[in-house]
Amino acid sequence: MLDLGARARAAAAVLARAPTEAKNAALFAVADAIVDQSRAIQAANRQDLDRGRSGGLAAPLLDRLELTDARIRSMAEGLRQIAALPDPVGEIGEMRMRPSGLQVGRMRVPLGVIGIIYESRPNVTADAAGLCLKSGNATILRGGSEALASNLAIAGCIHEGLAAAGLPRDAVQVVETSDRAAVGILIAMDSHVDVIVPRGGKGLIERIGREAQVPIIKHLDGNCHVFIDDRADLDMALTVAVNAKTYRYGICGAMETLLVARGIASRVLPALAERLADAGVEIRGCEETRALVADAVPATEADWETEYLAAILAVRVVGGIDEAMAHIGRYGSGHTDAIVTDDLARARRFMAEVDSSSVMVNAPTCFADGFEYGLGAEIGISTDKLHARGPVGLEGLTTRKFIVLGNGQVRG
Amino acid sequence: MLDLGARARAAAAVLARAPTEAKNAALFAVADAIVDQSRAIQAANRQDLDRGRSGGLAAPLLDRLELTDARIRSMAEGLRQIAALPDPVGEIGEMRMRPSGLQVGRMRVPLGVIGIIYESRPNVTADAAGLCLKSGNATILRGGSEALASNLAIAGCIHEGLAAAGLPRDAVQVVETSDRAAVGILIAMDSHVDVIVPRGGKGLIERIGREAQVPIIKHLDGNCHVFIDDRADLDMALTVAVNAKTYRYGICGAMETLLVARGIASRVLPALAERLADAGVEIRGCEETRALVADAVPATEADWETEYLAAILAVRVVGGIDEAMAHIGRYGSGHTDAIVTDDLARARRFMAEVDSSSVMVNAPTCFADGFEYGLGAEIGISTDKLHARGPVGLEGLTTRKFIVLGNGQVRG
Repeated sequence: MLDLGARARAAAAVLARAPTEAKNAALFAVADAIVDQSRAIQAANRQDLDRGRSGGLAAPLLDRLELTDARIRSMAEGLRQIAALPDPVGEIGEMRMRPSGLQVGRMRVPLGVIGIIYESRPNVTADAAGLCLKSGNATILRGGSEALASNLAIAGCIHEGLAAAGLPRDAVQVVETSDRAAVGILIAMDSHVDVIVPRGGKGLIERIGREAQVPIIKHLDGNCHVFIDDRADLDMALTVAVNAKTYRYGICGAMETLLVARGIASRVLPALAERLADAGVEIRGCEETRALVADAVPATEADWETEYLAAILAVRVVGGIDEAMAHIGRYGSGHTDAIVTDDLARARRFMAEVDSSSVMVNAPTCFADGFEYGLGAEIGISTDKLHARGPVGLEGLTTRKFIVLGNGQVRG
Repeated sequence: MLDLGARARAAAAVLARAPTEAKNAALFAVADAIVDQSRAIQAANRQDLDRGRSGGLAAPLLDRLELTDARIRSMAEGLRQIAALPDPVGEIGEMRMRPSGLQVGRMRVPLGVIGIIYESRPNVTADAAGLCLKSGNATILRGGSEALASNLAIAGCIHEGLAAAGLPRDAVQVVETSDRAAVGILIAMDSHVDVIVPRGGKGLIERIGREAQVPIIKHLDGNCHVFIDDRADLDMALTVAVNAKTYRYGICGAMETLLVARGIASRVLPALAERLADAGVEIRGCEETRALVADAVPATEADWETEYLAAILAVRVVGGIDEAMAHIGRYGSGHTDAIVTDDLARARRFMAEVDSSSVMVNAPTCFADGFEYGLGAEIGISTDKLHARGPVGLEGLTTRKFIVLGNGQVRG
């Protein structure tokens, strides 16, 4: 592992000064290789699937593991989209003349070496390698052992693409051992790795957060709220709430708790319950909710804290914006929270005071996504506050250094 | 400690929405209180000094501990300067219309609760509290036990100022116990503290870096280089090198190693050695340096790695920019490095490829400083790459969240 780290560090120095043209050429070449070799990738993937099935891997994990034709096409397409994004490296901003006569500004540069730790989904291998490559970083990929053959087949395509563009092979390395101790070493070698991005279940991420010596950019959970203010437009409130819950149950931006102002609850809740019932969503409500929605299940304290990622919604009637924000402050996970209101002052308060990575007005929380925000692909959605907050695209994989230009000024 | 943390968290919510006017009023009131109560502060400081002397505290530490009239005035002046800086909180940028019809932008907000761990210098109490207050954060200050009486006296003035401006007393809290275990708790309570800024010796900072569960913004060391290219203007090279070394020996931006291109070494080194000898600087040189500078001491491997913070300079003759950058990559600490050259292509390469928090062209490294860069006061100079790199002012104490404005858009 240390050798892997040292080679990544050496490759990072080359990548940091690689021209945009070479990085894009590599991305296109990897995309082509993935399409050309889709049969071989799927053969490797079948080995993983067979091993998974005989090892008793759960059905949802098997599903994530599978590389269908569509998923392979989408990996290749994702790489081409990354190639089309502007190169963040070398961008100079905020250049100002100082009283000393020096010009001081900031230049965007790669972080260096990025370690990605992930589970099941082998498409992360291509996505993460592509984002790190475009942002000028070397990558060490540590996927799940259940996907090792698939990951190595994809890594073969990546290495072909790097070679075609004249970039170092060590720019993207896959950890080949399935030894769990490898993760422990990876997250501790802070002289070789600049940041770790863990992607996976909450258990994995909490463990890495506890043990890492290397800084991490992490996504912990998405207990997202929509608050319907009593000055909301009724139709808009219903539209936003239904979409926030039902667009996709499994994404981290899905609404998990709906808060409704008492003054509008009797108009919102019966209509909403009807629409959600049609979609097959179970409602767990506070007492006031249950008075308005006949078949709502009683909500317990645990419901306010839970990220269901399923067709279940917790609903609470609150006095107004203050009580709503207090609920979000107490139970929210700082991911994405929305208000539906026509009142400008309340919209501004909610935006300023709710301490989440995304705060929305009159829009459903399921829009929390790098593509929707215009960042291009994302390496994840950070629920941390430092460095990168919210969807993390190329910018989050870079840092800025100060540059200072003078002609022999002295300080004194 | 946990109670302290919970109270800081509650105060942070109030501070995050405090108007600029109230924060500035508090800063001015604290400055006035410090001036008004300078006699009482100095009496408390004398207790610390007496205890330090009888406890055998080393002379440089006693010097840092002492609050002279000038230092007290400068604390008050520093707070007034922070009041004069623009408030970063609430700034909205990059607002763009997306194809979905949503407007997506980013709003700058406080980090929340900031823990500052520092040694000896009691003026950090006022400086750090001031920066955190202006940036809308609550602060937990843990100074050295040797400065406890001084820190509490200054904290008294801070609480007076907060009260005068109607801001919560818990916005700034001083850990009153001198128990070392308090630091261990502070750096572990990640639900109450958002970031730790350790200020002090390398030993303290390494220990905190190893043990912290809370993210840290740290300054490790400043092994800064100046490289004199063979296309440098000779006078400028001498001016920059002398100033980089002699402006102040003890600052982290002081040059510790000078690299000179072989093609200009015979013209630079004898003249430079003369000027540095006048200033009382000892030269430790490679063999080629010693052939040009009669009284240079032989440099060992350890010299290339050392941050002297003293009137000592390591000097090495190198083949050119590639060898210089390789030396900096191997021995540097990523703090601040400079090139002196008239060659534009080399200047651009040095800026792009040297991976340090500040990279300078034709300017001495001692300019690495928040005031000189126009950031106003600084909480420190970060040698980390994530979040804040280089001098950290108000911006480094904030984060940006996404804000999304719509009128009932749905994703689908």
